[in-house]
Amino acid sequence: MPLRSDWSARPCAIARSLDVVGDPWVLLVLRDALLGARRFEQFRERLEIADNVLSRRLQAMVAAGLLRKATYRGEQRTHQEYLLTEAGADLLPVLNALALWGEKHTTPPRPDAHIAIVHTACGETSSSADACDNCGTPMTAGDTAWRRSWHTPELTELRPADNN
Amino acid sequence: MPLRSDWSARPCAIARSLDVVGDPWVLLVLRDALLGARRFEQFRERLEIADNVLSRRLQAMVAAGLLRKATYRGEQRTHQEYLLTEAGADLLPVLNALALWGEKHTTPPRPDAHIAIVHTACGETSSSADACDNCGTPMTAGDTAWRRSWHTPELTELRPADNN
Repeated sequence: MPLRSDWSARPCAIARSLDVVGDPWVLLVLRDALLGARRFEQFRERLEIADNVLSRRLQAMVAAGLLRKATYRGEQRTHQEYLLTEAGADLLPVLNALALWGEKHTTPPRPDAHIAIVHTACGETSSSADACDNCGTPMTAGDTAWRRSWHTPELTELRPADNN
Repeated sequence: MPLRSDWSARPCAIARSLDVVGDPWVLLVLRDALLGARRFEQFRERLEIADNVLSRRLQAMVAAGLLRKATYRGEQRTHQEYLLTEAGADLLPVLNALALWGEKHTTPPRPDAHIAIVHTACGETSSSADACDNCGTPMTAGDTAWRRSWHTPELTELRPADNN
C-alpha cells in the first residue's frame, strides 16, 4: 500500500495494527472469510469488488499473515483457497466492535438490516466485542455466530482459524 | 472520500461503520482526541500528518458526527477546537480491539512500546476491548485509561464525549 504512511514501526500498537488492517477491504475480506468464504470467486461475489483490487488485497493479506494460501483439489482441477490464520481470526473483536458501533450509530437501509453477535457456547446475544456479557467468557471465532437478519434468520457460525 | 466504494447503505453494520471509519487517519485522530488533543496544531504535531490531509479528515469527521467544532477563546484571539461527540467516543472499543490485536500480533520497535487498557473504576488492566475482565463492567471513555509505557509510566485517562 504505497500511497499510505508506514506505521509498522510505531510504538503505539493501534498504529501498528492499522498498518495491517487500515484498509477497509481487508476487514471486509476478513468478515467474509469468517462467514465461510475461501475461494477468490466467493470473495468477489460477496464483496462486489474488482478482480485486480481483490487480488492485491488477498496478496497483501497473505503477506501480512492474515490469510494462508492452500491448494484445494476440485473435481476437475486444483484450486487455490485462502484459509484464516490465527492472526486473521483474532481480528474478530475489531469486526464485532465495528458491528456494534454501526448498529448504534448508523442508519440501516431497511428494517431487517441488523447484525447480532451470539456466543454459541451459551446461546446468548452479546453486546460486547470480545466477552460474552451473559456468561463472561472471552469469545473467539470458534464460539461466535452472527445473526444477519436481512440475510437469513438462522445463525451463521463463524469459521475459526484453520490450524494446520 | 471519492476514491472509495460507498458502503453507507449496506445491510451489514460492519460495512456501514467502515464507510465512516475505514480510513486509518480517522481512527488515529480519534485516538489522539481520546488522549486529549483538541486543536488542529495538537493533532498535526502528534500525527505527523500533512496540513491538507489533516484538514480534510477533520472536516469529514465533523460531517460524519465523530467530532464537533467549537470556538475556544484564547488570550489573544479565538481558536477552533474539535470536541469528541458520543459517536466518536463510542469508537473506543474499536481502538482497544486494535490495540490488543497489535500487542499480540505485531512487533514493537522497542521493548517499552506497549499499551495497556486500564479500567479506572477498579484499577485493573483489561484484556477485553469493552468489558473489564476484572469486574465485568462495560468500559467507556469516561472510565478507561491507557498506559503507554514508551511515553510515560503514568496512566493517561481518556477524554469522554464533550456533551454540551
